[in-house]
Amino acid sequence: MQIEIEQRILAANERLAAENRARFDEHGVFVVDLMASPGAGKTSTILATIEALRDRYAIAVIEGDIASKVDAEKVRAHGIPAVQINTGGACHLESAMIRRAVDTLDLAELDLIIIENVGNLVCPSDFDLGEHAKVMILSVPEGHDKPYKYPNIFQVSQAVILNKYDTMSVFDFDEAEFREVVRGLNGLAPIFPMSATKGEGVQAWAEWLAGRVEDAKTGRGA
Amino acid sequence: MQIEIEQRILAANERLAAENRARFDEHGVFVVDLMASPGAGKTSTILATIEALRDRYAIAVIEGDIASKVDAEKVRAHGIPAVQINTGGACHLESAMIRRAVDTLDLAELDLIIIENVGNLVCPSDFDLGEHAKVMILSVPEGHDKPYKYPNIFQVSQAVILNKYDTMSVFDFDEAEFREVVRGLNGLAPIFPMSATKGEGVQAWAEWLAGRVEDAKTGRGA
Repeated sequence: MQIEIEQRILAANERLAAENRARFDEHGVFVVDLMASPGAGKTSTILATIEALRDRYAIAVIEGDIASKVDAEKVRAHGIPAVQINTGGACHLESAMIRRAVDTLDLAELDLIIIENVGNLVCPSDFDLGEHAKVMILSVPEGHDKPYKYPNIFQVSQAVILNKYDTMSVFDFDEAEFREVVRGLNGLAPIFPMSATKGEGVQAWAEWLAGRVEDAKTGRGA
Repeated sequence: MQIEIEQRILAANERLAAENRARFDEHGVFVVDLMASPGAGKTSTILATIEALRDRYAIAVIEGDIASKVDAEKVRAHGIPAVQINTGGACHLESAMIRRAVDTLDLAELDLIIIENVGNLVCPSDFDLGEHAKVMILSVPEGHDKPYKYPNIFQVSQAVILNKYDTMSVFDFDEAEFREVVRGLNGLAPIFPMSATKGEGVQAWAEWLAGRVEDAKTGRGA
């Protein structure tokens, strides 16, 4: 019974996700869903990405949190439109929430929407929001063993950002082992070492993302 | 419909949790449920707690993970019985999983069971496992703003461990603000600064826990 209901919820979510994606494609807007643990640096990565790409693209941000609006306020302080979704207690975003958020944005004016999912390495990986790419951030302090414990999120991601890379010397993080295990789970996703708050390593990630935005604009995306 | 089903699942979970708790109480075993983000240091805290209390109490550990058995192996390497639960994809432990794990332990021989929940600041806070206390760990690299974003887990915890305290100088963590917000959410829970892997601050936490174990042994617990 529980499983049947879960499947029905997932199916309803996927129908709405497809509708979201069709809307994005119609306007040539590329949409990326950023997933990570609490405190891995999702908002810092978004702010660094905005600084790297704002001269080239019109960007908006959709912020997902259980509670509070501090992240949307941080983004708006940079002069970028941001919609805050508060999930109440839900541990992930769903496509219906994204639809309501997108209703408040002018898609004809945008090139790129960055969604910040709820801080969680588990639930967000199961829910298609209509985005074109899921990207996950692991931060160095979390440890190199996380792909063993949370394999699914590494498998569904089109790119992996290894954030707080500047703290590598403070923590016992085995980068070679991390890369090997991620490769085993996902042979395609590039891994971008980054220190988002210091601006280091942002360029490589931003160029990868810019390539995807260009594809979306010219209709070769998704 | 979704909400009705969720309530039925929660009610079933609570019935089993009460049964678990009655079993623990019958044997005077104190049970603590450790919750945290991925990589906040749950396993390191458990290993440090074992070292601090193993001469006084008979301890067992129940390890919850989506996948892998690396944590149970780490605990067993210290000569402590450990049961690994793999949730498949579930983002939290439930009382039925704990019952099956406890069936493999000899409660008559134990004083303390430490449960390591799945790394997640959201879902574990909603599920009673039959434990006597939920305790959460926040690590300094996650940032002092987490109580704003994940208030519920701070509210249901009887103690808060602030781990990786030795990295305070590396991160922009405002401890005064953190303590003030946690106080607003939960006026009773003590906050224990700790560096589990370095053994710093472990004693204060271990003595708090020992007090609870003593209460449980003499029937004044829970």
